[in-house]
Parts: sequence; C-alpha cells; structure tokens
Amino acid sequence: MSQSNQRNQAWLLASRPEGEPVKENFRLVEQPIPELKDGEILLRTLYLSLDPYMRGRMDDSKSYAAPAQIDQPMVGGTVSEVAESKHADFKQGDVVLAQSGWQSYAVSDGSGVAKLGDLPHPSWALGILGMPGFTAYMGLMDIGQPKAGETLVVAAATGPVGATVGQLGKLKGCHVVGVAGGEEKCRYAIEKLGFSACIDHHRDDFAEQLAAACPDGIDIYFENVGGKVFDAVFPLLNTAARVPVCGLVSGYSSRELPPGPDRTPQIMGGILKRRIRMQGFIIFQDYGDHYPEFLKAMTPLVEQQKIHYREHMIEGLENAPQAFFDMLKGKNFGKTVVKVAQ
Amino acid sequence: MSQSNQRNQAWLLASRPEGEPVKENFRLVEQPIPELKDGEILLRTLYLSLDPYMRGRMDDSKSYAAPAQIDQPMVGGTVSEVAESKHADFKQGDVVLAQSGWQSYAVSDGSGVAKLGDLPHPSWALGILGMPGFTAYMGLMDIGQPKAGETLVVAAATGPVGATVGQLGKLKGCHVVGVAGGEEKCRYAIEKLGFSACIDHHRDDFAEQLAAACPDGIDIYFENVGGKVFDAVFPLLNTAARVPVCGLVSGYSSRELPPGPDRTPQIMGGILKRRIRMQGFIIFQDYGDHYPEFLKAMTPLVEQQKIHYREHMIEGLENAPQAFFDMLKGKNFGKTVVKVAQ
Repeated sequence: MSQSNQRNQAWLLASRPEGEPVKENFRLVEQPIPELKDGEILLRTLYLSLDPYMRGRMDDSKSYAAPAQIDQPMVGGTVSEVAESKHADFKQGDVVLAQSGWQSYAVSDGSGVAKLGDLPHPSWALGILGMPGFTAYMGLMDIGQPKAGETLVVAAATGPVGATVGQLGKLKGCHVVGVAGGEEKCRYAIEKLGFSACIDHHRDDFAEQLAAACPDGIDIYFENVGGKVFDAVFPLLNTAARVPVCGLVSGYSSRELPPGPDRTPQIMGGILKRRIRMQGFIIFQDYGDHYPEFLKAMTPLVEQQKIHYREHMIEGLENAPQAFFDMLKGKNFGKTVVKVAQ
Repeated sequence: MSQSNQRNQAWLLASRPEGEPVKENFRLVEQPIPELKDGEILLRTLYLSLDPYMRGRMDDSKSYAAPAQIDQPMVGGTVSEVAESKHADFKQGDVVLAQSGWQSYAVSDGSGVAKLGDLPHPSWALGILGMPGFTAYMGLMDIGQPKAGETLVVAAATGPVGATVGQLGKLKGCHVVGVAGGEEKCRYAIEKLGFSACIDHHRDDFAEQLAAACPDGIDIYFENVGGKVFDAVFPLLNTAARVPVCGLVSGYSSRELPPGPDRTPQIMGGILKRRIRMQGFIIFQDYGDHYPEFLKAMTPLVEQQKIHYREHMIEGLENAPQAFFDMLKGKNFGKTVVKVAQ
C-alpha cells in the first residue's frame, strides 16, 4: 500500500447535539494524507471502538476529558496498523492500540501508541482486554470489593463492562443479578454468562422483579446506566453497600432535570443511614498504574473461557454514527466495534 | 446515699414527633428504684449527652439502631456513678460511661458499661474523647484522607464533631473553612480553633462567600448538616473529592421532600465526572475496633491543647427536652451536655 493512492475518510464533529445526538452532528469527509515527517508514523485504522463516554465528549462542557473539537475528527480508541513509519520504535505492519478517532488514517508521533504484539483477536484490545474490561475489573475489585455470598447487581448486563463485572463477581462467589433490555439479552446473561438472574428493564414490573431476584438486598451495585434502574436499586441497597459509579448512559442526552420532588435528601439520608459508599471513577485517571496487573489477571481468564466476551461488529466506517446512536439506546448486543479495514 | 430514699426521674418518650419534636413528645415521671439483684449495679447519672442522632431514634423507622420505645426512657449516653453494686466488676463510686438514657438512675447488668478511670473532666467522655470526637477522627482520617494543602470544609463548625474535624484538618496542613450559624460562632472558629475562614450560613450571600473562601475548590467536605450547605458545597467539589457523610441534621425533622426538579441525576453526574467519593458511616458500627487507637491519638492532643473543646452545659435533667430542641436548631455553642447530678 502506498499512501499516495489513498485518501483519509474521516467523520468530523459537525455540531454539538442538543439532547440526543443525530446524524447531522457528524460529517463524512475525504482528505489527502499528509507527507510523514521524521519521527512520525501513518496509522491505518483496523477497528474503531464505540463507547458511551463519547456522548460526553460531544458536549462543550467541563468533564474529565477535553471535548471533541468542531470540524475535527470525532475522538475514539482504535486498533491500527502501522502503514508507514519514519519513527525508530515502529515498523510497517506493527499492530497498535491508538487514539486515531473516527477516521481511516491518522498521522501520529507515537505518543500514547502501544504495540499490541501478536494478539489472536486484536479488536479485543478495545474491549475485554482494554478500557471496558479494565473499567469493569478495577471498579468492581477496588470500589465494589466483592465477597462470597454477597448480591451484586449490574445493569447493561451484556455490554462489555457489565458482562465482565458480572462474570468477575460470579468468580468471587457473588449472587449476580443482571439488568438488560429484552428477553434475548437476559437469556444470554443467565445461560452464557452464568448470572443467577437477569431482569428485563422494559417490563412494567421491573422494580418488583428486581426485588424478587435480590431477596437478601443488594451489597454492590455497579452503576453504569442511572435513571430508572438506579431508582429501583437504591431502596434495595443493604447496610455498607458499595456503588462504583462508572457511567450513567440513560441520562447522557438529557437536557433537563426530571420533575420533583427533589430526592437529594432521600439519597443522602440513605447514604448516611445505610452507610453506603458511592464513588465515581474514570479508569485511566484513577487506576492507570494498575493496567499491567489487570492484563495479568484478565488474560488467562479470557483464554481459559472463564470470562466470555461478545462483540457487536459493524462493518465499515460509514456506519459509525448509526452504530453509535444504536449503542446509546442499548440496541447493541456486546461490545460495539467498527471494522474499518482488513 | 441509700437508694430507698431516692426515686428515679425519667423523661419517657410519650409520642413520636411529626416533623420537629415538641415538648409533648416527652413526659417526665418519677418511679421507684427497683431492688438490685445479684450481678446488677445501680447507676446514678452525672452527665447526659444530647446529640443530633437522637432525633432519628424518636422515629419508628428502619435506621442503623432500633427506635426508642414509647413510654420508655428516652435513649442516650451518660457518664454515671456506681451508686450501689452487686456486681463483682464494679464498686460504689466508680465513674463509668453508660447508656442510661434520659433519667437520673438506671439499673444495669454491666453490659456496655465502661469504667472511665480518673479523668480530669469526666463529661469529656461524652464529647471530644467519646462518640463525637471519635466520629470526627475516623470520618476525617479514614474517608476524608486529608493531605497538606487541600481544602477542607466543615459545617456546624463549633459543634463537637465539626470543631474537632476542622482542628484535625488544620494539624494535617489543610486549608480549613468552617460554616456556622452566626458571627460569634464564626469568630470563635477562626480565632480559637484556627480555621482559615468561617462563613455564617444565615447570610444571604452564603454560597458566594463560601466560594470566595475556597478559591481552589473543595477537596473534603465533612457532611453533618445537609440542606443548603450541601447545595452550596456540591458545585465546588474538586475532582477526586471525598465526602464523609456523618449527619444531616438540617433534614432530620423534614416530613416531605423539597420541590423539584429532582437533582438526583445532577448529583450522580457530579459523582461520576468528578470521581467523588461519598460515604456514610456510623461510628461504632464501622470503626468500633479503632476506639483505643483514637483515644491514644486524641488524648495527648487535647491535654496539650492542640485541640480545643467547648461544652454547652445545661443544668438539670428537667431542662433536657428544651436543650435538645435548641441543639437541633443550632442554638447550642459547643457540645450539649446536661448536668444531672454532682
């Protein structure tokens, strides 16, 4: 492959969403690929990761990371191949983990780019062996502190974080109850992932079903959705319960607070009386140093199939926005990854 | 003193409050003192502690401790003197820490009764060297984890918990900002306790004043009041802030939630994005084992006057209800203790 024959396809952030993101917020462009300077590499995107946190990056608000910039490629983690190298540390053909964003090529000076070696499934570096798996592992182990016999509830139970949290909890001897959207996902969570129960949040009697599945209350709630799942979970939290707050995907596109009454005193009163620990975390900021420890623990679990992992693979960069919208609505089934090139 | 000449004076819980407690919720009675059986002691109350948690015990709701019973003496910690003993471990004249409740005498089998030895100020066992001091110490050290240069905000800054938290934070090198009701208390917090600033929550511009006193944001908020103080603090919490939730006295008598909108998603979003740790604790349930460690650390600090301690002493058991109401409204200045007998 010679870069001169290629042009870069990129999804730019065209505008910031008001509420739910729409396709007009993105614009697909073709651009020439610049000449490499000394010390640079040209990365060809193989897989692009789509994750809920990206919704936050589309806003121009203070958060844990800088917002994506208008008229620049939308941000995102990728598995890429070094197409050309003028950098001493990389050679053509190296497969790497990078932050190329929503585009088919990117030029990099190598900072933040990590060689993946000879992984049997390179795309897993975006999921079970990457950010989502690491998030599940540290949030559950460090904040959740699971103990045998405890009840662990996890929402988005078939997503890359939830499925991993639940299976790790199972290995720790917890009674694991999942929450997912639809009967098919719930069946998968029980039959394939080994959860004790999984409740479909579309059901009218969701809260009652959840309570029935947690006869001893809830000791750990791994929070990644918020909204009505949180509302059903909160009254069931036991004394000394732990709530790692990893995500709140149900509210990412909300523009207004829900109507009253204001339940803040109720939440704070519950935290006090039931001695609940609620803690937000952002995986690489809080736990970056633990990444090697995570890989060492998780890799054999995945290889020995003690932890199952499912990808929701989308073909073609052109389909990235729709796949992203679908993921935010829970229409994915497994980790959403866009296959950009062979 | 012979018990046959004495009768027990006791404040019974006459009814449960609806909202703020009123004097009709209590009834003062005189009762005969029963004959001691073998293995029992008669305790004469010297000092009765009045604490915010007692408001919760007046309700018949699930909490961390069983509610007080109707027509039984109101519960509470006391410093008592052994007036008579048929128990091998206690002799007449021993001064002890007990849970005799709001009454002048109590018969006990000795369980939960601890000898105080020769304390220069026995009533301090109800404050700086007892439950409130222990609460301040563990909540700040274990959950708050103060580091030099950080900003610590503490409400009820001249109360027994708040004053201790702030002074301990000062010793750790924190920038300590108190919140208190009234100029006199604020002056005391700055001049006597050594806080960097103290804001009067009665001021109309309270939130602005607090923000101005915390130019680098807030790293630790020791929560013991809730309500408008929490509302002013929350937006100022820094990334990785810690919030030990020790009490919510402003809301203990609230019967209804405040009007909307419901800020729950905002609170949860803040916890996530700013990676805040919020954790409730109940001192003896969570940290009972650490009491000797606390005494060892705190006693010399108090003796060397590195930690100042102020009591709000009320004379006479008959005045206990009014003193209790005043304390819930913040009219006390220091730790509220009722002197029941010499």
